Amino acid sequence: MTEKKLVEPELLKGFRDLMPAQMIGRRKVVEVIRQTYELYGFVPLETPALEKIETLLGSGEEADKLVFQFSDQDEQRVGLRYDLTAPLARVVAQYRELPKPFKRYQISPVWRYDKPGPGRFREFLQFDIDTVGSPSMEADAEIIAAMSDALMALGIQRYGIRFSNRKILNCLIAFADIPAELTLKVFRVIDKFDRIGIEGIREELTKGRVDVSGDKIPGVGLALEKVTPIEKFLSLPKGSRTGTIEAVTQLFAGVPGADEGIGELKKISACLEALGVPEEKAYIDLTIARGLDYYTGPVYEAWLLDAREFGSIMGGGRYDGLVERFIPEKIPATGASIGVDRLFAALQKLELIETVSSTAQVLVTVMDRERSDEYQRIARELRTAGIRTELYLGTEKGLRKQLEYCDRQGIPVSVIAGSNEFQANQVTIKDMRKMLVEGPKTADRKEWLAARTGQKTIVRADMVSEILALL
Amino acid sequence: MTEKKLVEPELLKGFRDLMPAQMIGRRKVVEVIRQTYELYGFVPLETPALEKIETLLGSGEEADKLVFQFSDQDEQRVGLRYDLTAPLARVVAQYRELPKPFKRYQISPVWRYDKPGPGRFREFLQFDIDTVGSPSMEADAEIIAAMSDALMALGIQRYGIRFSNRKILNCLIAFADIPAELTLKVFRVIDKFDRIGIEGIREELTKGRVDVSGDKIPGVGLALEKVTPIEKFLSLPKGSRTGTIEAVTQLFAGVPGADEGIGELKKISACLEALGVPEEKAYIDLTIARGLDYYTGPVYEAWLLDAREFGSIMGGGRYDGLVERFIPEKIPATGASIGVDRLFAALQKLELIETVSSTAQVLVTVMDRERSDEYQRIARELRTAGIRTELYLGTEKGLRKQLEYCDRQGIPVSVIAGSNEFQANQVTIKDMRKMLVEGPKTADRKEWLAARTGQKTIVRADMVSEILALL
Repeated sequence: MTEKKLVEPELLKGFRDLMPAQMIGRRKVVEVIRQTYELYGFVPLETPALEKIETLLGSGEEADKLVFQFSDQDEQRVGLRYDLTAPLARVVAQYRELPKPFKRYQISPVWRYDKPGPGRFREFLQFDIDTVGSPSMEADAEIIAAMSDALMALGIQRYGIRFSNRKILNCLIAFADIPAELTLKVFRVIDKFDRIGIEGIREELTKGRVDVSGDKIPGVGLALEKVTPIEKFLSLPKGSRTGTIEAVTQLFAGVPGADEGIGELKKISACLEALGVPEEKAYIDLTIARGLDYYTGPVYEAWLLDAREFGSIMGGGRYDGLVERFIPEKIPATGASIGVDRLFAALQKLELIETVSSTAQVLVTVMDRERSDEYQRIARELRTAGIRTELYLGTEKGLRKQLEYCDRQGIPVSVIAGSNEFQANQVTIKDMRKMLVEGPKTADRKEWLAARTGQKTIVRADMVSEILALL
Repeated sequence: MTEKKLVEPELLKGFRDLMPAQMIGRRKVVEVIRQTYELYGFVPLETPALEKIETLLGSGEEADKLVFQFSDQDEQRVGLRYDLTAPLARVVAQYRELPKPFKRYQISPVWRYDKPGPGRFREFLQFDIDTVGSPSMEADAEIIAAMSDALMALGIQRYGIRFSNRKILNCLIAFADIPAELTLKVFRVIDKFDRIGIEGIREELTKGRVDVSGDKIPGVGLALEKVTPIEKFLSLPKGSRTGTIEAVTQLFAGVPGADEGIGELKKISACLEALGVPEEKAYIDLTIARGLDYYTGPVYEAWLLDAREFGSIMGGGRYDGLVERFIPEKIPATGASIGVDRLFAALQKLELIETVSSTAQVLVTVMDRERSDEYQRIARELRTAGIRTELYLGTEKGLRKQLEYCDRQGIPVSVIAGSNEFQANQVTIKDMRKMLVEGPKTADRKEWLAARTGQKTIVRADMVSEILALL
């Protein structure tokens, strides 16, 4: 046999491994959200990672370019799902017998053929909820309430959910008398309001501007008198739901179609009131646009006031054209998506997630290999009591190295037993959080152990209760 | 704009959707296993779905053919993971600083370019545990104990885990004096012992046989005197761990290398004793081969005695060559894999999994759309009490249709309130499990309701406690 060439152990560009500490933290986040969403009666669905390419394409030119697509071994064009909405649409179109409303959640990775960069990955976890088959604004309000509850359940105090309605933005076009062909351009500028402010908006809507890096941003070319109504619109008060509704009602008095959008805002506001979502958590911000070609009514997005740099960490809206690519029918739908990895990164920054790299609560160290059955009995006893217990299986024979391993893994308690303990029917338990692993290198074992804190020797029969008291 | 052609809503061949009832059930199974494995201190890891093709190939010709592989948009050869072991090997080789032992679990889909068929899918969920960096038989015993605990925790009474050691099979070759070039062929025949019995083994090892469907199965061509020692080996007693060990020790007396394999069996047996895994649950069966090129020591597999047709639902072993494709180093590893979908199907057959298609415990029906805020307040109150509550958001206005929806979704309790109830500050609660949805079609609502059972009208303040008592 010839020697085989070694394979370089590396990831594909744009991909990453989630090591235990991240996985344990992310799992907690997902669980909290899942439990919150289930309180609202959402049910889980899972669709395959691979779909026919036609199922995935068609939600916009930009998106289509990012679909991970290829020919499989049968020369069939297939793709990895780009989001969880296209598969949902396929499911709803395919299983016509599904009871409606169909309120589903899906927690799955999605793939995008994006340019990899710092914090930009080609695979990431999405957590979506959608209510399919309900035209009612109550469904939209419920999504907002569920988002709000989820953020609260994650321990976030300072967050904001802003919502608006695409129908209101459409009214603005009539109100400001914008030529139809400029609509999308104007929306794209308005969408930047947060970042560039009213001054920037005015420049970009007219003659353009030069940004901080010196780049010239071309203007839309509107006359100044058309910008004035837009500025009025952007300056409408936020903060009080009824206040914003009153203001936009006045501003858009007589604008055709305004009643419908404003009526929907009113209905959602009333529902949020009944559902107990306060105004400072969910308010109307008429400047948000979100997914210009996609949404047909309410839109909403959440962000963390103390981690604004992460942008919107949840977002969604109503898209009543959900299944129209598949069947000649309108089925109303509304829902929100969470970028779990981004949310998790924000929670880490806010120190709302404790990072531990171990699931075990106890490490049983092994001082005398000949008595491995004794150590296994200890481990078994702890596990039977529901205590997550790792028996040290490594190759280190010394106690110090084993305790270093325990410390490094973040396991809070260790159990130590040697021939003395076994003879006396005792064990030593050690609260690792109270100890310094680095002892004087020259000290012998006894001295070194004595110098540590958080350690006591107890009768074996008390082991479980003493450890439970520590945890 | 021209009308777009509709896309046929369908899955790729070999793929499937997991609808809520399956997802809810499967999630429960996964959670039980996860909690059991965490009791042993295993920690979660996640690797990307896509890997460099070289990372995935090389675990055997058969397997290589089944890797879902393609060129991505950059013309790079990539593949979807075929199992969770190759990515683990890459991780261990890539992050040399990982503390050892590294005891990880991973719950992820894998993809195989297999011929689709009934019950054979191209995407399925695997749940693996592996202990990397421990050469000790204690690690193997722990995997067996964790498998056993997991099956017990799933409510399975009758299961068997059989284990053996590849080193023993290697001794058989010396013992029976089989020419080296026939080794693999002989192992493949022995692996069929369960299905074809001693008679079938004898025929296949010698002149071949004709199976039930009339197909000719060629024989290995051994002389009958070489088959006799193999038959002796296959007839060794099972059932008692010490009994089997004694018998094989006698049979293989003087066979070079036998001590090592038998010593490992002894050590695992002693550990299982200490870990409290009884002999009827985990016994030695020297006839199991499993992954001929792959495993280097202990092998083990679990099956359900009342669902034998599902084959082995968990299996694994020790493979000390884990990282050798990546780095010139031997890192010992042992671990087991569960085919979650197959296990779930078996549990369904054994009726150990209750199938519900809803997460909600209560459906709040809506009789008077004008009072939607009242219904939302009811829903909110229930959710605040931790009761998973769906507010009916569908388009059906009639109570009967809404209750039918409730019944179809398997939601156990419904809340009904109309103007009478609101005025009297009451609600009606209904135990759906006690009611027949199909009432006499001609009866009016009052009659129809009165004819049902499991329904009572209570004061609103008692709603939460009364419903909690029902759940």
